[in-house]
Amino acid sequence: MQISTTEIQVRYSETDQMGIVYHANYLVWMEIGRTALIEELGFNYAQLEEDGILAPVLDIQISYKKPCKYGEKVKVKTWIEEYNGLKTVYGYEILTESGELSVEAKSSHVCVKKDSFRPVSIRRTHPDWHEAYEKAKKK
Amino acid sequence: MQISTTEIQVRYSETDQMGIVYHANYLVWMEIGRTALIEELGFNYAQLEEDGILAPVLDIQISYKKPCKYGEKVKVKTWIEEYNGLKTVYGYEILTESGELSVEAKSSHVCVKKDSFRPVSIRRTHPDWHEAYEKAKKK
Amino acid sequence: MQISTTEIQVRYSETDQMGIVYHANYLVWMEIGRTALIEELGFNYAQLEEDGILAPVLDIQISYKKPCKYGEKVKVKTWIEEYNGLKTVYGYEILTESGELSVEAKSSHVCVKKDSFRPVSIRRTHPDWHEAYEKAKKK
Amino acid sequence: MQISTTEIQVRYSETDQMGIVYHANYLVWMEIGRTALIEELGFNYAQLEEDGILAPVLDIQISYKKPCKYGEKVKVKTWIEEYNGLKTVYGYEILTESGELSVEAKSSHVCVKKDSFRPVSIRRTHPDWHEAYEKAKKK
Repeated sequence: MQISTTEIQVRYSETDQMGIVYHANYLVWMEIGRTALIEELGFNYAQLEEDGILAPVLDIQISYKKPCKYGEKVKVKTWIEEYNGLKTVYGYEILTESGELSVEAKSSHVCVKKDSFRPVSIRRTHPDWHEAYEKAKKK
Repeated sequence: MQISTTEIQVRYSETDQMGIVYHANYLVWMEIGRTALIEELGFNYAQLEEDGILAPVLDIQISYKKPCKYGEKVKVKTWIEEYNGLKTVYGYEILTESGELSVEAKSSHVCVKKDSFRPVSIRRTHPDWHEAYEKAKKK
Repeated sequence: MQISTTEIQVRYSETDQMGIVYHANYLVWMEIGRTALIEELGFNYAQLEEDGILAPVLDIQISYKKPCKYGEKVKVKTWIEEYNGLKTVYGYEILTESGELSVEAKSSHVCVKKDSFRPVSIRRTHPDWHEAYEKAKKK
Repeated sequence: MQISTTEIQVRYSETDQMGIVYHANYLVWMEIGRTALIEELGFNYAQLEEDGILAPVLDIQISYKKPCKYGEKVKVKTWIEEYNGLKTVYGYEILTESGELSVEAKSSHVCVKKDSFRPVSIRRTHPDWHEAYEKAKKK
């Protein structure tokens, strides 16, 4: 299983008046982790969209363990938890700068056509992605 | 069971380049729904914070069924799915302007002290909230 | 001169760790004010975009006088400061719930084609908008 | 004059349905540029806040020249345009990945006490910052 690790510097704009990162912003970091994993597999999400394919989110499960704070450099670990040729489930761990577990999460996605939002079999449209996902996924 | 319904006009800033509402923004709407429910129960979340108590999110589960779009007036339905004196689980349905189910979600929360992030029993610190939650929750 | 007044309830997500509304979020409120003014003039910005026309921002000037806070209902006043058939300058005042001046701002816009980002003369493509803007603008 | 250059990878969440970066998000990037400049001068904004001092924004002027897009790595150049011991004006240029000017901006700030929002003379409370700002500012 391939795990991507991305470092993110917490932005002031990401905090809220609790003095911690606003909870919805971790979903943004998950997306950054996902994009980084895709790049490490040799692909590019922006390019996929230019090919007319989107990968919207179907479901998210997220558990908040310990808040991240402004000034920290956090780490997002991302991997492919499940992949079956149609649906991909990504797994995530976000760690505070001191290495403590901040967030555990999963998100599932299917590829769809940009104009119709109809599902697309990535196995057929992008066999190279398919192969890479098969290789990288959790066994 | 008491269900709060809040109308939200989709903001341009909430869209992304897919032409739909960016998925993390539904969490913001869930928070607005939660706040509205609390107000309908006769309380005020801002006041709770002034009393030195926060209600951070522990977990979120969210399923995206149909995207919302700019220009729409959507509805957020919020209720208390579970409440045991310590932890509250809120349930949510977000409906598109035409009434279709856009998002189904749950979020769980505990109250903590602002300075220490230590759990607080709302039953003891705010018995009136406790009673209202007991009455309003799903049976 | 026609002035639109929109009420906005401050969202938790709009605060930052200073305990006030994060400064970039006032630009979002200005956009909401602009949209409301356009609706009061009898038009609809979402419809304009469906006609293939965008109205991106050219310039913004904003002065922060007094911060808005979570829990407040603020007011955004918006008017057409200048309009010459091509460029529109909107004026804004944002007031705290107690009626104090929070923000003074201006933003200028031109209409462009969605696909090419080339300027469009709204006077020619949408003469009804042109007429309404001429009537509503500051004299 | 010292100029800080920070690279930022455009996030999907920063786009809007125009297919470009939403205009308010450039203010977030300006803040990141400011923070980077402060670090290059040997200081740390998070630390300043822990000392009970904030540096809220007074005014922003921003001109949008060319939109940034998802997938790009943009550059934020930041410098001290003016500094008089009380007020600081930062200057900014944001460049697209291909090096074209995307945004020109200025923001002015004063330091205030966290609890009272009363102005603070940084020259007196933090003479080392004062000296560094005097040295780094545009001559």
